[in-house]
Amino acid sequence: MKLHLDHSFLKESELEAMKDEILTCHHLLHDKTGEGSDFLGWLNLKNDEEELRRIKEAAKRVTDSSGVLVVIGIGGSYLGARAVIEALSSPFAEKKVLFAGNNASPDYLNDLLDFLQDKNVFLNVISKSGTTIEPAVTFKVLREWMENRYGLEEARTRIFVTTDKQKGVLKEIASHNGYETWIVPDDIGGRYSVFTPVGLLPIACSGIDIDKLLSGVYDAIDLYESIENNDCYEYAAARNLLYRSGKKIELLVNYEPKLHYLTEWWKQLFGESEGKDGKGLFPAGVDNTTDLHSMGQYIQSGERHLFETVIKINKPYRDITFTIPEDSIDHLDYLNGKKMSDVNLNALQGTIIAHTRGNVPNLVLEIEEINEYTIGELLYFFEKACGMSAYMLGVNPFNQPGVEDYKKEMFRLLGKI
Amino acid sequence: MKLHLDHSFLKESELEAMKDEILTCHHLLHDKTGEGSDFLGWLNLKNDEEELRRIKEAAKRVTDSSGVLVVIGIGGSYLGARAVIEALSSPFAEKKVLFAGNNASPDYLNDLLDFLQDKNVFLNVISKSGTTIEPAVTFKVLREWMENRYGLEEARTRIFVTTDKQKGVLKEIASHNGYETWIVPDDIGGRYSVFTPVGLLPIACSGIDIDKLLSGVYDAIDLYESIENNDCYEYAAARNLLYRSGKKIELLVNYEPKLHYLTEWWKQLFGESEGKDGKGLFPAGVDNTTDLHSMGQYIQSGERHLFETVIKINKPYRDITFTIPEDSIDHLDYLNGKKMSDVNLNALQGTIIAHTRGNVPNLVLEIEEINEYTIGELLYFFEKACGMSAYMLGVNPFNQPGVEDYKKEMFRLLGKI
Repeated sequence: MKLHLDHSFLKESELEAMKDEILTCHHLLHDKTGEGSDFLGWLNLKNDEEELRRIKEAAKRVTDSSGVLVVIGIGGSYLGARAVIEALSSPFAEKKVLFAGNNASPDYLNDLLDFLQDKNVFLNVISKSGTTIEPAVTFKVLREWMENRYGLEEARTRIFVTTDKQKGVLKEIASHNGYETWIVPDDIGGRYSVFTPVGLLPIACSGIDIDKLLSGVYDAIDLYESIENNDCYEYAAARNLLYRSGKKIELLVNYEPKLHYLTEWWKQLFGESEGKDGKGLFPAGVDNTTDLHSMGQYIQSGERHLFETVIKINKPYRDITFTIPEDSIDHLDYLNGKKMSDVNLNALQGTIIAHTRGNVPNLVLEIEEINEYTIGELLYFFEKACGMSAYMLGVNPFNQPGVEDYKKEMFRLLGKI
Repeated sequence: MKLHLDHSFLKESELEAMKDEILTCHHLLHDKTGEGSDFLGWLNLKNDEEELRRIKEAAKRVTDSSGVLVVIGIGGSYLGARAVIEALSSPFAEKKVLFAGNNASPDYLNDLLDFLQDKNVFLNVISKSGTTIEPAVTFKVLREWMENRYGLEEARTRIFVTTDKQKGVLKEIASHNGYETWIVPDDIGGRYSVFTPVGLLPIACSGIDIDKLLSGVYDAIDLYESIENNDCYEYAAARNLLYRSGKKIELLVNYEPKLHYLTEWWKQLFGESEGKDGKGLFPAGVDNTTDLHSMGQYIQSGERHLFETVIKINKPYRDITFTIPEDSIDHLDYLNGKKMSDVNLNALQGTIIAHTRGNVPNLVLEIEEINEYTIGELLYFFEKACGMSAYMLGVNPFNQPGVEDYKKEMFRLLGKI
């Protein structure tokens, strides 16, 4: 993986001047001396071997029986697994892992119940406390549905719980019913939890090799530990420089539709970490080339308050080579002998040129191909860049006090005491 | 449908002062005296009865044979149909209409071809000119696949073309092969084309009643024609007032996951219409309550450069009522006797209170329920509001010159002369 900075907008001297800040924030992270330092468990993540073994065993039960896993979780208990699973799956394949409890729509839940009628169903409910209302009510409905359908005894064996190691409503329910449980670590917040059982159990149930994924993470931990020549820190510095220069929106840009949920995960990571004290880049995304035909006009010519970070994938899994005779009725003979990936990569390259000329700085993250290893690497890259970036911005990267405000009002309206 | 304006941020006197602007822009639209007035065919849309009959006939062939329709189109030839179909379908139901040619990813196209192996396949290729590269190459690949699979004669009967009435590459291909064709009108641009055959044929093939959809559109045409008490114009005025007061981002907010693509359609509509001359609100969206747990922190406490337009749906199709004893292990007894829609609507209401208090103005569009009629009404509401709003902003609502910039660079890189 390689970061290319846009030197028409970011000068070497500006980046050089950030070195002191990088050093300071590096120490805040690694010496655990910054705000929120109780939540740095992801920084040098080590997974418990026994927990990984139980994850694989549970996943094998689901996949061997052609089961469908319904993951009940919201926010960080949802986006990481979905991002990884979609990045590594065909968008047209039958879904092996479905998501619920990430909204409060009765239509969504009723439609899901219809769909599950003739499926072989397992549940994984994920919540640190068990009191977040969307997963709590969804779990209640689905648990009763499972018990009606499979009986109390069999339902028990089909429900997996990921929660606090000792306290909380969900822990109580799990103990009372004897569900198999995995632990949400105390020192890792939701949006940083994808490589804990929170993300790993659903990912494994979709058939993805979590060892390969984690080897990408572990290598990235080593790779991005140095203070010098650290792309991860340079990305953090670049986005802060652009923010200080007046840019207010960062667009994460992909050219592979299956990366859509990676962008959603990234939006939570950066938005929730940095959007506080009236500060922070607004994180948004585009899926290209699709969105060149919707948001493209704005990016090219609207308000000049944005910059882009482009994820460039050099190689698809399988390419398509065009054979087009000169007199083809399609008028596509200029593509004869070229590959579809040439079209995609030249669209990317052409867009970077056009947008840069339109005064939209473009940073580029170049990756050889999408696989378990590179996705692990990429997600860790963003996690660490986010911690660094939020410290540079002067905010606590690991809390989210603003999320409580709507909950308080909602609970008041619902009459909860 | 009813618009509620946020009177903590928008004063009656300010809106009153916009009346002259509304009047001026109303005449630009209705007298066709503004920029881009060649593209006002959608304003008082009338559909050709014979064309509608042929749409229903083609759709019946697809649905009667349990067929799958692959729609090949990008931008306005894609988003409208997808928005309507998803708004009116179960997110878990088997997809009857699939989308291709809206990106240049070989992985996506190869995955689609795998999926189509055992399906009964029809194609609908949609392009005014036929030269847009993504749909053009995708159509070439899929047409050859169809001809290999079904033979030349049968493939001919399974391919529907929506294009210019007389000129262009796609028109030539259709005439040469004898494909049934529908017309993209000359006076309706892509992002306004959902109620022409561009959107109606795919929508009908998904099993949706297009007569009900159009009756919502036709009623909205009448409803939003008056100059006084016109919610559509008030929405346009409100968003311009907020923009002039320094807001730079508008978030379209829903609480029903199936409205996700309606937001994507809306982003194209407003972004492409207004994002020019260095101006325009940046259009973004959140799907709640999901995104309250990702973007919620930023909206509550980040930079104060945004406002929200909330789509409030009063009634779900099917609700869920909670029966929860007082000593329930779930600790959800405060919900006993309440419905899941109460949770959703109180989340909406609580969020409006919390965000407004956090200095994020909230406009609310209230709709009784989602159905064919109200979706038709809502989309027309946004179309007309967008025309009005862009004229207030002082830009041509109906062109998109910036979209060509990346294409020029891409074609140069691909060696197209």
